[in-house]
Amino acid sequence: MGLTLAQKIIQSHLLSGEMTPGSEIGLKIDQTLTQDATGTMAYLEFEAMGVPRVKTERSVAYIDHNTLQTGFENADDHRFIQSVAKKHGIYFSRPGNGICHQVHLERFGIPGKTLIGSDSHTPTGGGIGMLAMGAGGLDVAVAMGGGAYYITMPKMLRINLTGKLSPWVSAKDIILEVLRILTVKGGVGKVVEYGGEGIATLSVPERATITNMGAELGATTSIFPSDEITREFLKAQGREKDWIELKPDDDAVYDETITINLSELVPMAACPHSPDKVKKVEELGEMKIDQVCIGSCTNSSYRDLMLVASILKGKTINPNVSLAIAPGSKQVYTMLAQNGALADLISAGARILECACGPCIGMGQSPNSAGISLRTFNRNFEGRSGTANAQIYLVSPETAAASAITGVLTDPRTLGKEKPVEMPEHFYINDNLIVPPASESEAKDVEILRGPNIKEFPVTTALPQSIAAKALLKVGDNISTDHIMPAGSKILPYRSNIPYLSNFCFAVCDKEFPERCRHNGKGIIIGGANYGQGSSREHAALVPLYLGIKAVIAKSFARIHCANLANAGIIPLMFKNEKDYDAVDQMDELELPDIRKEIESGTTVLVKNRTKGTTFEAEAVLSERQRKMVLAGGLLNYTRENSGK
Amino acid sequence: MGLTLAQKIIQSHLLSGEMTPGSEIGLKIDQTLTQDATGTMAYLEFEAMGVPRVKTERSVAYIDHNTLQTGFENADDHRFIQSVAKKHGIYFSRPGNGICHQVHLERFGIPGKTLIGSDSHTPTGGGIGMLAMGAGGLDVAVAMGGGAYYITMPKMLRINLTGKLSPWVSAKDIILEVLRILTVKGGVGKVVEYGGEGIATLSVPERATITNMGAELGATTSIFPSDEITREFLKAQGREKDWIELKPDDDAVYDETITINLSELVPMAACPHSPDKVKKVEELGEMKIDQVCIGSCTNSSYRDLMLVASILKGKTINPNVSLAIAPGSKQVYTMLAQNGALADLISAGARILECACGPCIGMGQSPNSAGISLRTFNRNFEGRSGTANAQIYLVSPETAAASAITGVLTDPRTLGKEKPVEMPEHFYINDNLIVPPASESEAKDVEILRGPNIKEFPVTTALPQSIAAKALLKVGDNISTDHIMPAGSKILPYRSNIPYLSNFCFAVCDKEFPERCRHNGKGIIIGGANYGQGSSREHAALVPLYLGIKAVIAKSFARIHCANLANAGIIPLMFKNEKDYDAVDQMDELELPDIRKEIESGTTVLVKNRTKGTTFEAEAVLSERQRKMVLAGGLLNYTRENSGK
Repeated sequence: MGLTLAQKIIQSHLLSGEMTPGSEIGLKIDQTLTQDATGTMAYLEFEAMGVPRVKTERSVAYIDHNTLQTGFENADDHRFIQSVAKKHGIYFSRPGNGICHQVHLERFGIPGKTLIGSDSHTPTGGGIGMLAMGAGGLDVAVAMGGGAYYITMPKMLRINLTGKLSPWVSAKDIILEVLRILTVKGGVGKVVEYGGEGIATLSVPERATITNMGAELGATTSIFPSDEITREFLKAQGREKDWIELKPDDDAVYDETITINLSELVPMAACPHSPDKVKKVEELGEMKIDQVCIGSCTNSSYRDLMLVASILKGKTINPNVSLAIAPGSKQVYTMLAQNGALADLISAGARILECACGPCIGMGQSPNSAGISLRTFNRNFEGRSGTANAQIYLVSPETAAASAITGVLTDPRTLGKEKPVEMPEHFYINDNLIVPPASESEAKDVEILRGPNIKEFPVTTALPQSIAAKALLKVGDNISTDHIMPAGSKILPYRSNIPYLSNFCFAVCDKEFPERCRHNGKGIIIGGANYGQGSSREHAALVPLYLGIKAVIAKSFARIHCANLANAGIIPLMFKNEKDYDAVDQMDELELPDIRKEIESGTTVLVKNRTKGTTFEAEAVLSERQRKMVLAGGLLNYTRENSGK
Repeated sequence: MGLTLAQKIIQSHLLSGEMTPGSEIGLKIDQTLTQDATGTMAYLEFEAMGVPRVKTERSVAYIDHNTLQTGFENADDHRFIQSVAKKHGIYFSRPGNGICHQVHLERFGIPGKTLIGSDSHTPTGGGIGMLAMGAGGLDVAVAMGGGAYYITMPKMLRINLTGKLSPWVSAKDIILEVLRILTVKGGVGKVVEYGGEGIATLSVPERATITNMGAELGATTSIFPSDEITREFLKAQGREKDWIELKPDDDAVYDETITINLSELVPMAACPHSPDKVKKVEELGEMKIDQVCIGSCTNSSYRDLMLVASILKGKTINPNVSLAIAPGSKQVYTMLAQNGALADLISAGARILECACGPCIGMGQSPNSAGISLRTFNRNFEGRSGTANAQIYLVSPETAAASAITGVLTDPRTLGKEKPVEMPEHFYINDNLIVPPASESEAKDVEILRGPNIKEFPVTTALPQSIAAKALLKVGDNISTDHIMPAGSKILPYRSNIPYLSNFCFAVCDKEFPERCRHNGKGIIIGGANYGQGSSREHAALVPLYLGIKAVIAKSFARIHCANLANAGIIPLMFKNEKDYDAVDQMDELELPDIRKEIESGTTVLVKNRTKGTTFEAEAVLSERQRKMVLAGGLLNYTRENSGK
């Protein structure tokens, strides 16, 4: 029986476990990446492990999130990360060099390699045939130290692309169609593998848009084969030597196959407040808009911005619309500045932002009150834009640019003849904002620069015999890590300060939650389905840990967050019978009377509801390894305990 | 007896008063400008006056301050200003179009005209021979309504420039030298008029750098003649028709003359924390630096950024330095993007920020803790950068760029042969981000868009017979409006919300001050010399008004703030005997037993110190008109009371 593309990479990197869907497997990790919002914590954890130099083939620390710098904290964190990187063998991508995923694709990604990153959009690397996955900061730290990265062996979902995109329809519309079909839960436990003759019509940046936003499916990752198009891309990046061919075996077996005819696709938009609320642009009609934002790791490539420039050239942005554009990398930005496209964008009235994540993570450009904003980004969760009642629509760069001119949501097919963007034969290459690490002999003299905002992360203790605590919060389905630990310009700068962050935990759902935790000292959270979707931030586990949360009982969990909970020593429990969810109310007194023994021997956990006088069963979503971790009080304790072995 | 250049413009615009230094004069105002941080309040005040359409020749509303948009407030304010502008006959410069002073110079300024702006750096217009002054928002509102702008007739200070600048020495070094000689108090009550054969060697952007930063001298304004260089500049802007020749009479009489030989100047730097702490760069030595910022209304012109690009071309920013560059206007930005200079800046590793004020007003790019930052800006007050313990040095673009490469403070004369920047024969002209107002007939249908953050300004009441209040705060010399009402990214978005802003009043000096005011209900502030220097923000008067401040007793006042206090109905009182300052302690119980009668009849005010049992005299710094205003409880009440006349 043949192997899929992902199975081939998994097989060649398998350190432990069986390649049976549902089993835990340990993978050798070739490359890691971090960004600065999750990176500070990841490097504090790496330091705590005491490994002098990273053991990966290539680890890169990017600065792309906290670039507004509205206080000393960001610049301090950047300096901390730069000094850690220099000392421990990590490449450092300076602020201004661009968004981690875009830069990594351009300069570091290699087909067939494994990559984990402390950012949920790390699957962008799947666009050139990497097995690239988002992970918690602690997982990345462990991988940098040479440890395996553990995942549940995923099922294989093939998406067969046939036909060819029509003019003005692009990769963003493909992934929006996939999201429409599968929903934000549809990829859970799966690798999404693209194939079919349609893929030959898609450039690497287009493929990367699709794998990037596969994160919104909840998938383990998404991946394209490495073919001639990949080779041309790497050659244009001066890296043809990194190319290998990669494709699934002809007789590979997929658990599921979906076919999408590219020729039939039309411009799409994800409506507020979920990336899977997808409708056709023509269906939505000429809705008046207030803002357009173009950029992010999803749509900020040379291809995307050249196309936007060709639409805007000689035009003027509608007087009632603010158009902000953030190029994805210094390479893209320089090329646009060299070939005149940037002058066209500026002249049309675009506000050009620093080459970074920017408004995608709520760092600036918050819309007006109740404003309607079209964004080429990947997430439109409520409040993420920084304006609580803003209405965010996710669209392609084509739709965004067309609408910026008219002032209403506009189908780009009304623009007339499209001028397709030719991929350049040679990208502009200047890696002068990538600082290599110190040599091993120089490393010992590198001083780590620590600012006053960098606080230690919370202490964990071994799992007690029993837990008795109130259900301090009950929430519904699809709670994202943006709900649990909001980002945005006011909070994101404090990512290395857990005590401060704890004031904002679940602020979107219930402002009283942190105070209730402090008052009660400990607690349990009741969640619905797909609990913890979205961003990979481990802060969504570390902050509840700091607030005394001992367990989360939910209908189901998103992959990365579930692992982050286990890493933090918080038990992720799934209702065995979903109806039991309805029988628990917030503030009910719960008890897990025999939790330690139960986790020692398996995954079935008895929960007593003392308030209601009822009892129900839950399933700990933990592998054997994770059960040991939770018993020890989390991955860091577990790693320390086992470090002598 | 001949007239100086400033006297000629004053004479041709004189509506009331005598042109005798020290007398109050009323001037006809031809043009006004506002920026968004002060503009929201100015337009609320304009609306309160009930005038349907501005009566000036040209009024322009710029958006350049609150462009980070870390919450809904900024976008709401921008929309409010845009709608007010459209309705009331004001041109609106959209976000992305650039910094008010740079754009106004390029597209609107006219030699010989009067301009007031709700921004202290409005004197930038003096670079093309305008009489351009910073003013409070209410003053600007009154001028838009056709009212006179009142100032004290200034003395005339001539600065005679001889010789020619050496390579790598530029306009910034001239104004730093002037600040070194005169200090931040040296310009109070004066117009600084530049002349001498040296001015023929200075381009308009260079002249504008000098008049811009004349604000730091405390001067009423600064001005250059309008000559052939001015004509060439306006011609290159497609505005030769706006040019007239303007020069002082040969027998003009100046109260004071200073001569500076340009040939002798060397690169200079203003050291922390005042623009007049000026030293030679070579004296300061090769101090290690953390950050360099280039831009602001002082140094963001085509000339400045082209020169920076020529220095950085083919180089890389030092790995320990973050270099941020914000172009001054869309015109400058587009031209740099068209001619390749921007590509050189990006390629060297500069972080290009949006075309706006940015870090100059603490909107982003705060340095690391205790970081050393070189900035081409105009102010280096403590804390203004957003990092309380940062050390800010003000330098020329040449010094900034040279230092960004080396990582240490560097004299640009070490760079070898300078390539002077040729002024372009034609600037790139595209005014598509300037929205003209609605026609008078359409105006009535324009709806004003008001966001929820826009609160009304505080109510004032007529001056009572007597005032008894505690000295709730005692501060030293050179208190700036940044001390009184801090700006920065966390506070500036709330400029239309006085109640919220009041929580931060004097936060730099004494965090307890707002609470003390609320507890006591009313109070008096004791200040040193040059109280209220710096930014023109009227919030530094409106917020104390909201907190119950009835009077400020100081050794001396900065011009704009003193007028703002009077406009707000707060009495500005000067110690007749400076030694009495020493005899008042914070929290002393003060009484002004007969204040209403005293102000009705003159300016001498008796102050009783009930705590010390002493008595002293103070002088109300008020013209006859201002006395009437204070009696009425401020300019808005006064205008309303007199609107029937």
